[in-house]
Amino acid sequence: MPNVHICEVGPRDGLQNAKHLMPTEAKKAWIGALAAAGLREIEVGSFVPAKLIPAMADTADIVSFARTIPGLKVVALAPNLKGFQRAVEAGAHKITFPVSASRAHSESNVRMTPDQMIEEVRRCAELKLPVEIEGAVSTAFGCTLQGEVAEEEVVRIAVALAGFCDAVALADTVGYANPAQVKRIFSLVKKQIGKKLEGAHFHDTRGLGIANALAAYEVGVRNFDSSMGGLGGCPFAPGASGNVITEDLVFMFESMGVATGISMEKLFAAREILVKGIPDEPIYGHTPLAGLPKGFRAAA
Amino acid sequence: MPNVHICEVGPRDGLQNAKHLMPTEAKKAWIGALAAAGLREIEVGSFVPAKLIPAMADTADIVSFARTIPGLKVVALAPNLKGFQRAVEAGAHKITFPVSASRAHSESNVRMTPDQMIEEVRRCAELKLPVEIEGAVSTAFGCTLQGEVAEEEVVRIAVALAGFCDAVALADTVGYANPAQVKRIFSLVKKQIGKKLEGAHFHDTRGLGIANALAAYEVGVRNFDSSMGGLGGCPFAPGASGNVITEDLVFMFESMGVATGISMEKLFAAREILVKGIPDEPIYGHTPLAGLPKGFRAAA
Repeated sequence: MPNVHICEVGPRDGLQNAKHLMPTEAKKAWIGALAAAGLREIEVGSFVPAKLIPAMADTADIVSFARTIPGLKVVALAPNLKGFQRAVEAGAHKITFPVSASRAHSESNVRMTPDQMIEEVRRCAELKLPVEIEGAVSTAFGCTLQGEVAEEEVVRIAVALAGFCDAVALADTVGYANPAQVKRIFSLVKKQIGKKLEGAHFHDTRGLGIANALAAYEVGVRNFDSSMGGLGGCPFAPGASGNVITEDLVFMFESMGVATGISMEKLFAAREILVKGIPDEPIYGHTPLAGLPKGFRAAA
Repeated sequence: MPNVHICEVGPRDGLQNAKHLMPTEAKKAWIGALAAAGLREIEVGSFVPAKLIPAMADTADIVSFARTIPGLKVVALAPNLKGFQRAVEAGAHKITFPVSASRAHSESNVRMTPDQMIEEVRRCAELKLPVEIEGAVSTAFGCTLQGEVAEEEVVRIAVALAGFCDAVALADTVGYANPAQVKRIFSLVKKQIGKKLEGAHFHDTRGLGIANALAAYEVGVRNFDSSMGGLGGCPFAPGASGNVITEDLVFMFESMGVATGISMEKLFAAREILVKGIPDEPIYGHTPLAGLPKGFRAAA
């Protein structure tokens, strides 16, 4: 049994922010390779209007494909009831809703206040459909629009979501978090909602993504989102990648003796498929370029 | 008073591994800007044969210049007695000796076994010159030549060095360390030599540099080496930088409320001077490219 559970979010959070489009067949090949590397949960797309985000236009097709991979939990993002219904129809096993703790970000992202968004998720949950529902508190560590986000607001939203969601995650959507803050906020929320607090979603925008994941691990978090190659990084900031890089995150845990259930070698193979599928996009990651240490042993 | 003390090693460990030469006047301008940003200790060069490492040929001149900066501790690296004598003559305040815990690396790097190198440092210390001497245990977390490095060997060398050095540091010369190992080895060595264990020197080769620094901080380490822009990163591995990036390390500590005594804004200004001084060299760092978070407050 793995000691930590990593959800690959590149096909959603990475491709959604990439400059180039990845063809549907290439996405499928990549998702297949990710699953073959040992990833047991992949966020494969989002059900948003295709005209707003063309990269996600094929999400229903991708969900159908991903469902054929044995043992894989297929996750999709939905921003509202309509997206939820489409995700359920497509057959997603788990649907994640971004609920921004920043009012400014929430209104800009989903045209709802945080409380309206909580009610939207509640309506979906009350349909009692056979699908797992995650409430992800986004901008939980700060917001590019409003700056600081009150910790009490993060706790309040997490508690509300825990009332009807299967799981709650905290997301550093814009890469503002620091390790001390990560430990403090995860601990605060855990005190209120216990095991319902599952996932940690970090961005590496200011280089602290891996350190923040370590901090979260140290306060008991065992579920992490990450994106292969830091896909979707800011194009005007070389090296300023988007999500925490899967390859480096898995390397950190495995080298610490914390099993992920993921093979580094097969992860590198999946990376090659990613690069082939979207050749013009910048792909980051230290461990694949430097190679594994001589004598490297994966966690038992 | 700062809570952590950061030693900028870019002018030595960065430039020594850079593909391009930085002119002497540009080095001086950069070092001046680093000091102006609040760095109170800078490793400005190494006293190695100029024909082996041309980038370090002007180290005596650089040391003389750096000594004119009020309040700055000027550090130089010496690989042997001869280098030590040159460093003392030039006026370095502190001289650091790399003592590799890997026999293969030691023989390749300084043509001495670890024990021969310990004796070389002892001879220098016994001269009782008015200069601070640091023994830096290099490849303390693994070695590209021999792979694993026995922890007992790291402890043994650190204990030997603590017998006659003013301070001992542990260096992850090749970027093999992981946070669990960092905590374990620093704690082991600290148990043996107490306050003589000062510095932590990490490389970001596999993306764990900042996480390793966090881990070291969490077991009580307060002195860190880092390099502006991750200078000297591996040229065939984009993003696979050399030393931990000063800008991101300072950002982590300051955003955690841990004072470094360093101004982020002035650090960004020093980075511009670095870029001008060695324009063709790749310069990394997330925080300078992404910018400070909205509402960012430095530690008090």
